[in-house]
Amino acid sequence: MALDGVRALVFDVFGTVVDWRGGVAREAAPFLARHGVAADPADFADAWRRRYQPAMEEIRAGRRPYTRLDVLHRENLEAILPEFGLDPASIPAAELEALNLAWHRLDPWPDAVAGLARLRTRYLVAPLSNGNIVLMAEMAKRAGLPWDAILGAEVSRAYKPSPEAYLRTAEVLAMRPEEVCLVAAHNGDLAAARGCGLRTAFVPRPTEHGPGQRTDLAPREAWDAVAPDFGALAGILGL
Amino acid sequence: MALDGVRALVFDVFGTVVDWRGGVAREAAPFLARHGVAADPADFADAWRRRYQPAMEEIRAGRRPYTRLDVLHRENLEAILPEFGLDPASIPAAELEALNLAWHRLDPWPDAVAGLARLRTRYLVAPLSNGNIVLMAEMAKRAGLPWDAILGAEVSRAYKPSPEAYLRTAEVLAMRPEEVCLVAAHNGDLAAARGCGLRTAFVPRPTEHGPGQRTDLAPREAWDAVAPDFGALAGILGL
Repeated sequence: MALDGVRALVFDVFGTVVDWRGGVAREAAPFLARHGVAADPADFADAWRRRYQPAMEEIRAGRRPYTRLDVLHRENLEAILPEFGLDPASIPAAELEALNLAWHRLDPWPDAVAGLARLRTRYLVAPLSNGNIVLMAEMAKRAGLPWDAILGAEVSRAYKPSPEAYLRTAEVLAMRPEEVCLVAAHNGDLAAARGCGLRTAFVPRPTEHGPGQRTDLAPREAWDAVAPDFGALAGILGL
Repeated sequence: MALDGVRALVFDVFGTVVDWRGGVAREAAPFLARHGVAADPADFADAWRRRYQPAMEEIRAGRRPYTRLDVLHRENLEAILPEFGLDPASIPAAELEALNLAWHRLDPWPDAVAGLARLRTRYLVAPLSNGNIVLMAEMAKRAGLPWDAILGAEVSRAYKPSPEAYLRTAEVLAMRPEEVCLVAAHNGDLAAARGCGLRTAFVPRPTEHGPGQRTDLAPREAWDAVAPDFGALAGILGL
Protein backbone atom coordinates (compact mmCIF):
# COMPACT_ATOMS: atom_id res chain seq x y z
CA MET A 1 0.00 0.00 0.00
CA ALA A 2 1.28 3.46 -0.89
CA LEU A 3 2.04 5.76 2.03
CA ASP A 4 2.48 2.97 4.59
CA GLY A 5 2.99 4.42 8.04
CA VAL A 6 1.52 7.80 7.15
CA ARG A 7 -0.88 9.15 9.79
CA ALA A 8 -1.62 12.67 8.57
CA LEU A 9 -2.27 14.13 5.13
CA VAL A 10 -1.52 17.84 4.90
CA PHE A 11 -2.60 19.79 1.87
CA ASP A 12 -1.44 22.66 -0.17
CA VAL A 13 -4.65 24.64 -0.66
CA PHE A 14 -4.39 27.44 -3.27
CA GLY A 15 -4.49 25.51 -6.54
CA THR A 16 -4.53 22.04 -4.98
CA VAL A 17 -7.80 22.15 -3.04
CA VAL A 18 -9.41 25.31 -4.38
CA ASP A 19 -9.52 27.19 -7.67
CA TRP A 20 -8.04 30.53 -6.59
CA ARG A 21 -7.98 31.99 -10.11
CA GLY A 22 -11.64 31.35 -10.84
CA GLY A 23 -12.72 32.48 -7.39
CA VAL A 24 -10.75 35.71 -7.36
CA ALA A 25 -11.89 36.51 -10.92
CA ARG A 26 -15.52 35.93 -9.92
CA GLU A 27 -15.16 38.34 -6.98
CA ALA A 28 -13.13 40.88 -8.94
CA ALA A 29 -15.59 41.07 -11.85
CA PRO A 30 -18.24 43.29 -10.18
CA PHE A 31 -15.50 45.41 -8.60
CA LEU A 32 -13.88 46.07 -11.97
CA ALA A 33 -17.24 46.72 -13.64
CA ARG A 34 -18.21 49.18 -10.88
CA HIS A 35 -15.03 51.13 -11.48
CA GLY A 36 -15.29 51.05 -15.27
CA VAL A 37 -12.28 48.79 -15.82
CA ALA A 38 -12.65 46.67 -18.95
CA ALA A 39 -9.89 44.16 -18.09
CA ASP A 40 -10.48 40.41 -17.95
CA PRO A 41 -11.07 39.55 -14.29
CA ALA A 42 -8.82 36.49 -14.68
CA ASP A 43 -5.96 38.82 -15.61
CA PHE A 44 -6.69 40.74 -12.41
CA ALA A 45 -6.46 37.47 -10.47
CA ASP A 46 -3.18 36.62 -12.17
CA ALA A 47 -1.75 40.07 -11.45
CA TRP A 48 -2.72 39.79 -7.79
CA ARG A 49 -1.24 36.30 -7.51
CA ARG A 50 1.98 37.38 -9.25
CA ARG A 51 2.86 39.40 -6.17
CA TYR A 52 2.28 36.48 -3.81
CA GLN A 53 5.73 34.87 -3.87
CA PRO A 54 7.70 38.16 -3.78
CA ALA A 55 5.70 39.32 -0.75
CA MET A 56 6.38 36.09 1.16
CA GLU A 57 10.01 36.14 0.10
CA GLU A 58 10.56 39.25 2.23
CA ILE A 59 9.54 37.17 5.23
CA ARG A 60 11.32 33.98 4.21
CA ALA A 61 14.51 35.98 3.73
CA GLY A 62 14.19 37.49 7.21
CA ARG A 63 13.78 41.07 6.01
CA ARG A 64 10.32 41.30 7.52
CA PRO A 65 8.77 39.57 10.54
CA TYR A 66 6.02 37.01 9.99
CA THR A 67 2.97 38.81 8.64
CA ARG A 68 -0.19 36.91 7.82
CA LEU A 69 -1.27 36.39 4.26
CA ASP A 70 -4.44 38.49 4.59
CA VAL A 71 -2.20 41.49 5.19
CA LEU A 72 0.10 40.64 2.28
CA HIS A 73 -2.92 40.14 0.01
CA ARG A 74 -4.25 43.55 0.98
CA GLU A 75 -0.92 45.24 0.29
CA ASN A 76 -0.65 43.43 -3.03
CA LEU A 77 -4.17 44.45 -3.97
CA GLU A 78 -3.34 48.11 -3.49
CA ALA A 79 -0.12 47.61 -5.43
CA ILE A 80 -1.83 46.21 -8.54
CA LEU A 81 -4.70 48.70 -8.77
CA PRO A 82 -2.61 51.24 -10.74
CA GLU A 83 -1.86 48.48 -13.30
CA PHE A 84 -5.60 48.58 -13.97
CA GLY A 85 -5.81 52.35 -14.01
CA LEU A 86 -7.18 52.69 -10.49
CA ASP A 87 -5.94 54.88 -7.67
CA PRO A 88 -6.09 52.95 -4.36
CA ALA A 89 -6.64 56.18 -2.45
CA SER A 90 -9.85 56.83 -4.38
CA ILE A 91 -11.50 53.59 -3.28
CA PRO A 92 -13.08 53.26 0.16
CA ALA A 93 -11.07 51.05 2.52
CA ALA A 94 -14.14 48.94 3.27
CA GLU A 95 -14.53 48.12 -0.42
CA LEU A 96 -10.90 47.03 -0.70
CA GLU A 97 -11.25 45.00 2.48
CA ALA A 98 -14.32 43.24 1.09
CA LEU A 99 -12.51 42.43 -2.15
CA ASN A 100 -9.49 41.22 -0.18
CA LEU A 101 -11.71 38.60 1.44
CA ALA A 102 -12.22 37.05 -2.01
CA TRP A 103 -9.42 34.70 -0.94
CA HIS A 104 -11.69 33.44 1.88
CA ARG A 105 -14.40 32.56 -0.65
CA LEU A 106 -12.70 30.29 -3.15
CA ASP A 107 -14.52 27.25 -4.50
CA PRO A 108 -12.98 23.80 -4.15
CA TRP A 109 -12.24 21.69 -7.21
CA PRO A 110 -15.24 19.40 -7.82
CA ASP A 111 -13.58 16.30 -6.27
CA ALA A 112 -12.14 18.00 -3.21
CA VAL A 113 -14.89 17.85 -0.58
CA ALA A 114 -15.92 14.25 -1.23
CA GLY A 115 -12.29 13.15 -1.59
CA LEU A 116 -11.27 14.77 1.70
CA ALA A 117 -14.23 13.16 3.44
CA ARG A 118 -12.98 9.74 2.32
CA LEU A 119 -9.35 10.47 3.18
CA ARG A 120 -10.19 11.70 6.66
CA THR A 121 -11.75 8.36 7.58
CA ARG A 122 -8.19 7.06 8.03
CA TYR A 123 -5.91 10.10 8.18
CA LEU A 124 -5.82 13.31 10.11
CA VAL A 125 -6.34 15.92 7.37
CA ALA A 126 -5.30 19.55 7.57
CA PRO A 127 -4.21 22.36 5.30
CA LEU A 128 -0.50 23.10 5.19
CA SER A 129 -1.04 26.34 3.34
CA ASN A 130 0.58 29.72 3.32
CA GLY A 131 -2.91 31.07 3.98
CA ASN A 132 -3.52 32.24 7.52
CA ILE A 133 -5.82 30.50 9.96
CA VAL A 134 -8.97 32.61 9.63
CA LEU A 135 -8.63 32.64 5.85
CA MET A 136 -8.48 28.82 5.82
CA ALA A 137 -11.25 28.46 8.43
CA GLU A 138 -13.70 30.75 6.63
CA MET A 139 -12.92 29.10 3.29
CA ALA A 140 -13.51 25.66 4.80
CA LYS A 141 -16.74 26.71 6.49
CA ARG A 142 -18.17 28.15 3.26
CA ALA A 143 -17.03 25.27 1.07
CA GLY A 144 -17.59 22.38 3.49
CA LEU A 145 -13.96 21.27 3.58
CA PRO A 146 -13.83 18.78 6.47
CA TRP A 147 -10.44 19.62 8.02
CA ASP A 148 -9.47 18.12 11.37
CA ALA A 149 -7.35 21.17 12.18
CA ILE A 150 -6.02 24.28 10.47
CA LEU A 151 -2.25 24.08 10.20
CA GLY A 152 0.15 25.99 7.97
CA ALA A 153 2.12 29.21 7.88
CA GLU A 154 0.45 30.94 10.79
CA VAL A 155 0.93 27.94 13.09
CA SER A 156 4.52 27.33 12.01
CA ARG A 157 5.29 31.06 11.63
CA ALA A 158 7.08 30.23 8.38
CA TYR A 159 6.10 30.36 4.73
CA LYS A 160 6.58 27.41 2.39
CA PRO A 161 8.94 26.37 0.96
CA SER A 162 11.01 27.24 4.05
CA PRO A 163 11.87 23.96 5.80
CA GLU A 164 10.37 25.24 9.07
CA ALA A 165 6.94 25.29 7.46
CA TYR A 166 7.06 21.51 6.98
CA LEU A 167 9.11 20.51 10.02
CA ARG A 168 7.13 22.56 12.54
CA THR A 169 3.92 21.15 11.12
CA ALA A 170 5.16 17.60 11.81
CA GLU A 171 6.26 18.71 15.27
CA VAL A 172 2.85 20.20 16.09
CA LEU A 173 1.29 16.92 14.96
CA ALA A 174 3.73 15.08 17.29
CA MET A 175 4.65 12.92 14.31
CA ARG A 176 7.90 12.05 12.62
CA PRO A 177 8.20 13.77 9.20
CA GLU A 178 7.76 10.43 7.40
CA GLU A 179 4.39 9.98 9.11
CA VAL A 180 3.13 13.11 7.36
CA CYS A 181 2.36 13.31 3.65
CA LEU A 182 2.00 16.56 1.73
CA VAL A 183 -0.62 16.51 -1.01
CA ALA A 184 0.06 19.21 -3.57
CA ALA A 185 -0.37 20.17 -7.20
CA HIS A 186 3.06 21.79 -7.26
CA ASN A 187 6.30 19.90 -7.79
CA GLY A 188 8.33 22.57 -6.00
CA ASP A 189 6.25 22.32 -2.83
CA LEU A 190 6.59 18.53 -2.86
CA ALA A 191 10.35 18.73 -3.40
CA ALA A 192 10.72 20.99 -0.37
CA ALA A 193 8.56 18.66 1.72
CA ARG A 194 10.56 15.64 0.62
CA GLY A 195 13.74 17.48 1.52
CA CYS A 196 12.39 17.65 5.08
CA GLY A 197 11.54 13.94 5.18
CA LEU A 198 7.81 14.17 4.55
CA ARG A 199 6.05 11.81 2.17
CA THR A 200 4.59 13.25 -1.02
CA ALA A 201 1.45 12.91 -3.13
CA PHE A 202 1.01 14.77 -6.40
CA VAL A 203 -2.45 15.68 -7.67
CA PRO A 204 -2.10 17.77 -10.83
CA ARG A 205 -4.49 20.66 -11.35
CA PRO A 206 -3.94 21.39 -15.03
CA THR A 207 -6.22 24.43 -15.20
CA GLU A 208 -5.09 26.18 -12.02
CA HIS A 209 -3.51 28.90 -14.15
CA GLY A 210 -6.16 28.80 -16.88
CA PRO A 211 -6.49 26.91 -20.14
CA GLY A 212 -2.93 27.53 -21.34
CA GLN A 213 -1.13 26.18 -18.27
CA ARG A 214 2.31 24.70 -18.94
CA THR A 215 3.64 24.13 -15.43
CA ASP A 216 3.06 21.27 -13.01
CA LEU A 217 1.18 19.19 -15.56
CA ALA A 218 3.14 16.05 -14.66
CA PRO A 219 5.24 14.75 -11.76
CA ARG A 220 8.85 15.93 -11.92
CA GLU A 221 10.08 13.31 -9.45
CA ALA A 222 8.89 9.86 -8.39
CA TRP A 223 6.51 11.08 -5.72
CA ASP A 224 5.17 8.52 -3.24
CA ALA A 225 1.72 8.74 -4.80
CA VAL A 226 0.30 10.34 -7.93
CA ALA A 227 -3.43 10.62 -8.59
CA PRO A 228 -5.61 12.69 -10.92
CA ASP A 229 -7.88 13.87 -8.08
CA PHE A 230 -8.62 13.37 -4.38
CA GLY A 231 -11.13 10.59 -5.02
CA ALA A 232 -8.55 8.64 -7.02
CA LEU A 233 -5.99 9.26 -4.27
CA ALA A 234 -8.42 7.75 -1.76
CA GLY A 235 -8.80 4.78 -4.09
CA ILE A 236 -5.04 4.27 -4.37
CA LEU A 237 -4.90 4.27 -0.59
CA GLY A 238 -7.56 1.58 -0.39
CA LEU A 239 -10.32 3.81 0.96
CA MET B 1 -30.35 39.49 21.33
CA ALA B 2 -27.52 38.43 23.62
CA LEU B 3 -24.01 38.63 22.16
CA ASP B 4 -24.88 41.18 19.47
CA GLY B 5 -21.91 41.75 17.19
CA VAL B 6 -20.16 38.52 18.18
CA ARG B 7 -18.74 36.60 15.19
CA ALA B 8 -16.77 33.81 16.86
CA LEU B 9 -17.46 31.57 19.83
CA VAL B 10 -14.33 30.13 21.38
CA PHE B 11 -14.59 27.40 23.95
CA ASP B 12 -12.82 26.23 27.01
CA VAL B 13 -12.67 22.47 26.45
CA PHE B 14 -11.55 20.47 29.53
CA GLY B 15 -14.65 20.54 31.70
CA THR B 16 -16.73 22.77 29.42
CA VAL B 17 -16.95 20.62 26.28
CA VAL B 18 -15.64 17.27 27.51
CA ASP B 19 -15.72 15.29 30.75
CA TRP B 20 -11.99 14.99 31.44
CA ARG B 21 -12.46 13.30 34.82
CA GLY B 22 -14.68 10.51 33.56
CA GLY B 23 -12.56 9.98 30.45
CA VAL B 24 -9.23 9.85 32.23
CA ALA B 25 -10.67 7.55 34.90
CA ARG B 26 -12.03 5.23 32.19
CA GLU B 27 -8.60 5.02 30.55
CA ALA B 28 -6.71 4.74 33.85
CA ALA B 29 -8.85 1.88 35.20
CA PRO B 30 -7.26 -0.95 33.14
CA PHE B 31 -3.80 0.54 33.69
CA LEU B 32 -4.27 0.56 37.47
CA ALA B 33 -5.77 -2.95 37.45
CA ARG B 34 -2.87 -4.27 35.37
CA HIS B 35 -0.42 -2.92 37.91
CA GLY B 36 -2.36 -4.13 40.92
CA VAL B 37 -3.30 -0.68 42.18
CA ALA B 38 -6.60 -0.71 44.08
CA ALA B 39 -7.17 3.09 43.95
CA ASP B 40 -10.33 4.68 42.54
CA PRO B 41 -9.50 5.67 38.93
CA ALA B 42 -11.31 8.98 39.50
CA ASP B 43 -8.81 9.77 42.26
CA PHE B 44 -6.06 9.04 39.76
CA ALA B 45 -7.66 11.50 37.32
CA ASP B 46 -7.91 14.11 40.08
CA ALA B 47 -4.28 13.63 41.08
CA TRP B 48 -3.16 13.99 37.48
CA ARG B 49 -5.27 17.11 36.98
CA ARG B 50 -4.03 18.64 40.24
CA ARG B 51 -0.62 19.14 38.64
CA TYR B 52 -2.07 20.86 35.58
CA GLN B 53 -2.11 24.45 36.81
CA PRO B 54 1.29 24.31 38.57
CA ALA B 55 2.91 22.91 35.40
CA MET B 56 1.46 25.69 33.24
CA GLU B 57 2.37 28.30 35.85
CA GLU B 58 6.06 27.68 35.16
CA ILE B 59 5.43 28.77 31.58
CA ARG B 60 3.04 31.62 32.41
CA ALA B 61 5.61 32.97 34.87
CA GLY B 62 8.32 32.88 32.21
CA ARG B 63 10.47 30.31 34.01
CA ARG B 64 10.08 27.83 31.16
CA PRO B 65 9.54 28.33 27.41
CA TYR B 66 6.22 27.35 25.90
CA THR B 67 5.89 23.56 26.10
CA ARG B 68 2.80 21.82 24.77
CA LEU B 69 0.30 20.25 27.11
CA ASP B 70 0.95 16.68 25.93
CA VAL B 71 4.49 17.05 27.29
CA LEU B 72 3.30 18.55 30.59
CA HIS B 73 0.70 15.78 30.93
CA ARG B 74 3.40 13.16 30.42
CA GLU B 75 5.67 14.73 33.04
CA ASN B 76 2.75 15.01 35.44
CA LEU B 77 1.83 11.38 34.87
CA GLU B 78 5.28 10.24 35.87
CA ALA B 79 5.18 12.55 38.86
CA ILE B 80 1.97 11.08 40.29
CA LEU B 81 2.76 7.39 39.81
CA PRO B 82 4.65 7.17 43.14
CA GLU B 83 1.52 8.53 44.91
CA PHE B 84 -0.12 5.29 43.73
CA GLY B 85 2.80 3.09 44.69
CA LEU B 86 4.21 2.80 41.18
CA ASP B 87 7.78 3.40 40.00
CA PRO B 88 7.71 5.21 36.63
CA ALA B 89 11.01 3.56 35.65
CA SER B 90 9.42 0.12 35.93
CA ILE B 91 6.73 0.83 33.34
CA PRO B 92 7.48 0.68 29.61
CA ALA B 93 7.59 4.11 27.97
CA ALA B 94 5.10 2.99 25.32
CA GLU B 95 2.57 2.11 28.02
CA LEU B 96 2.92 5.53 29.65
CA GLU B 97 2.66 7.21 26.26
CA ALA B 98 -0.54 5.29 25.51
CA LEU B 99 -2.04 6.29 28.87
CA ASN B 100 -0.96 9.89 28.30
CA LEU B 101 -3.13 9.96 25.19
CA ALA B 102 -6.18 9.42 27.42
CA TRP B 103 -6.51 13.21 27.18
CA HIS B 104 -7.05 12.84 23.41
CA ARG B 105 -9.95 10.44 24.02
CA LEU B 106 -12.30 12.33 26.29
CA ASP B 107 -16.03 12.13 25.76
CA PRO B 108 -18.07 15.30 25.22
CA TRP B 109 -20.92 16.17 27.57
CA PRO B 110 -24.16 14.84 26.05
CA ASP B 111 -25.30 18.23 24.68
CA ALA B 112 -21.96 19.32 23.25
CA VAL B 113 -21.86 17.92 19.71
CA ALA B 114 -25.45 18.84 18.78
CA GLY B 115 -25.14 22.22 20.49
CA LEU B 116 -21.92 23.08 18.65
CA ALA B 117 -23.51 22.04 15.35
CA ARG B 118 -26.29 24.56 15.95
CA LEU B 119 -23.96 27.31 17.13
CA ARG B 120 -21.64 26.94 14.15
CA THR B 121 -24.46 27.73 11.73
CA ARG B 122 -23.96 31.39 12.69
CA TYR B 123 -20.61 31.64 14.45
CA LEU B 124 -17.09 30.52 13.75
CA VAL B 125 -16.50 27.97 16.52
CA ALA B 126 -13.10 26.93 17.83
CA PRO B 127 -11.52 25.67 21.02
CA LEU B 128 -9.60 28.23 23.07
CA SER B 129 -8.08 25.55 25.24
CA ASN B 130 -4.78 25.03 26.95
CA GLY B 131 -4.68 21.69 25.14
CA ASN B 132 -2.30 21.55 22.19
CA ILE B 133 -3.41 21.31 18.58
CA VAL B 134 -3.06 17.57 17.95
CA LEU B 135 -4.69 16.80 21.29
CA MET B 136 -7.70 18.94 20.34
CA ALA B 137 -7.79 17.64 16.75
CA GLU B 138 -7.72 13.97 17.75
CA MET B 139 -10.30 14.55 20.46
CA ALA B 140 -12.57 16.31 17.97
CA LYS B 141 -12.15 13.64 15.33
CA ARG B 142 -13.04 10.85 17.77
CA ALA B 143 -15.94 12.70 19.34
CA GLY B 144 -17.33 14.45 16.27
CA LEU B 145 -16.83 17.97 17.60
CA PRO B 146 -17.44 20.21 14.54
CA TRP B 147 -14.77 22.88 15.07
CA ASP B 148 -14.03 25.37 12.30
CA ALA B 149 -10.41 25.67 13.45
CA ILE B 150 -8.24 24.62 16.37
CA LEU B 151 -7.11 27.67 18.30
CA GLY B 152 -5.74 27.96 21.83
CA ALA B 153 -2.46 27.79 23.71
CA GLU B 154 -0.33 26.33 20.93
CA VAL B 155 -1.47 28.93 18.42
CA SER B 156 -1.14 31.84 20.85
CA ARG B 157 1.95 30.37 22.55
CA ALA B 158 0.43 31.35 25.89
CA TYR B 159 -1.54 29.50 28.54
CA LYS B 160 -4.82 30.82 29.90
CA PRO B 161 -5.45 32.87 31.94
CA SER B 162 -2.53 34.92 30.57
CA PRO B 163 -4.01 37.83 28.60
CA GLU B 164 -2.01 36.85 25.51
CA ALA B 165 -4.00 33.62 25.26
CA TYR B 166 -7.20 35.61 24.67
CA LEU B 167 -5.80 38.61 22.80
CA ARG B 168 -3.72 36.63 20.33
CA THR B 169 -6.72 34.43 19.63
CA ALA B 170 -8.76 37.49 18.65
CA GLU B 171 -5.85 38.73 16.57
CA VAL B 172 -5.53 35.42 14.69
CA LEU B 173 -9.28 35.63 14.02
CA ALA B 174 -8.74 39.19 12.71
CA MET B 175 -11.53 40.27 15.05
CA ARG B 176 -11.83 42.87 17.76
CA PRO B 177 -11.93 41.26 21.22
CA GLU B 178 -15.61 42.19 21.62
CA GLU B 179 -16.43 40.20 18.48
CA VAL B 180 -15.21 37.04 20.21
CA CYS B 181 -17.09 35.30 23.03
CA LEU B 182 -15.51 32.76 25.36
CA VAL B 183 -17.82 29.94 26.40
CA ALA B 184 -16.61 28.33 29.62
CA ALA B 185 -17.71 26.49 32.74
CA HIS B 186 -15.17 28.36 34.82
CA ASN B 187 -15.71 31.82 36.27
CA GLY B 188 -11.99 32.50 36.46
CA ASP B 189 -11.46 31.84 32.76
CA LEU B 190 -14.40 34.13 31.90
CA ALA B 191 -13.09 36.88 34.18
CA ALA B 192 -9.72 36.80 32.43
CA ALA B 193 -11.40 36.88 29.01
CA ARG B 194 -13.59 39.80 30.06
CA GLY B 195 -10.51 41.60 31.30
CA CYS B 196 -9.20 41.42 27.71
CA GLY B 197 -12.45 42.75 26.24
CA LEU B 198 -13.94 39.45 25.07
CA ARG B 199 -17.61 38.64 25.59
CA THR B 200 -18.49 35.85 27.96
CA ALA B 201 -20.93 32.94 28.17
CA PHE B 202 -21.15 30.69 31.23
CA VAL B 203 -22.30 27.09 30.91
CA PRO B 204 -21.98 25.39 34.31
CA ARG B 205 -20.81 21.80 34.41
CA PRO B 206 -21.76 20.85 37.95
CA THR B 207 -20.24 17.35 37.86
CA GLU B 208 -16.92 18.19 36.20
CA HIS B 209 -15.17 17.42 39.48
CA GLY B 210 -17.51 14.62 40.49
CA PRO B 211 -20.68 14.45 42.56
CA GLY B 212 -19.42 16.65 45.41
CA GLN B 213 -18.39 19.64 43.32
CA ARG B 214 -18.59 23.00 45.10
CA THR B 215 -16.91 25.34 42.61
CA ASP B 216 -18.29 27.07 39.52
CA LEU B 217 -21.84 25.97 40.22
CA ALA B 218 -23.20 29.46 39.51
CA PRO B 219 -22.10 32.64 37.72
CA ARG B 220 -19.89 34.85 39.85
CA GLU B 221 -20.37 37.91 37.64
CA ALA B 222 -23.08 39.08 35.24
CA TRP B 223 -21.73 37.25 32.21
CA ASP B 224 -23.11 38.22 28.80
CA ALA B 225 -24.96 34.91 28.55
CA VAL B 226 -25.67 32.07 30.96
CA ALA B 227 -27.15 28.75 29.84
CA PRO B 228 -27.40 25.27 31.33
CA ASP B 229 -25.96 23.60 28.23
CA PHE B 230 -24.90 24.29 24.62
CA GLY B 231 -28.35 23.59 23.22
CA ALA B 232 -29.89 26.13 25.58
CA LEU B 233 -27.16 28.61 24.64
CA ALA B 234 -28.09 28.15 20.98
CA GLY B 235 -31.70 28.79 21.95
CA ILE B 236 -30.84 32.00 23.82
CA LEU B 237 -29.02 33.15 20.70
CA GLY B 238 -32.07 32.51 18.55
CA LEU B 239 -30.69 29.47 16.72
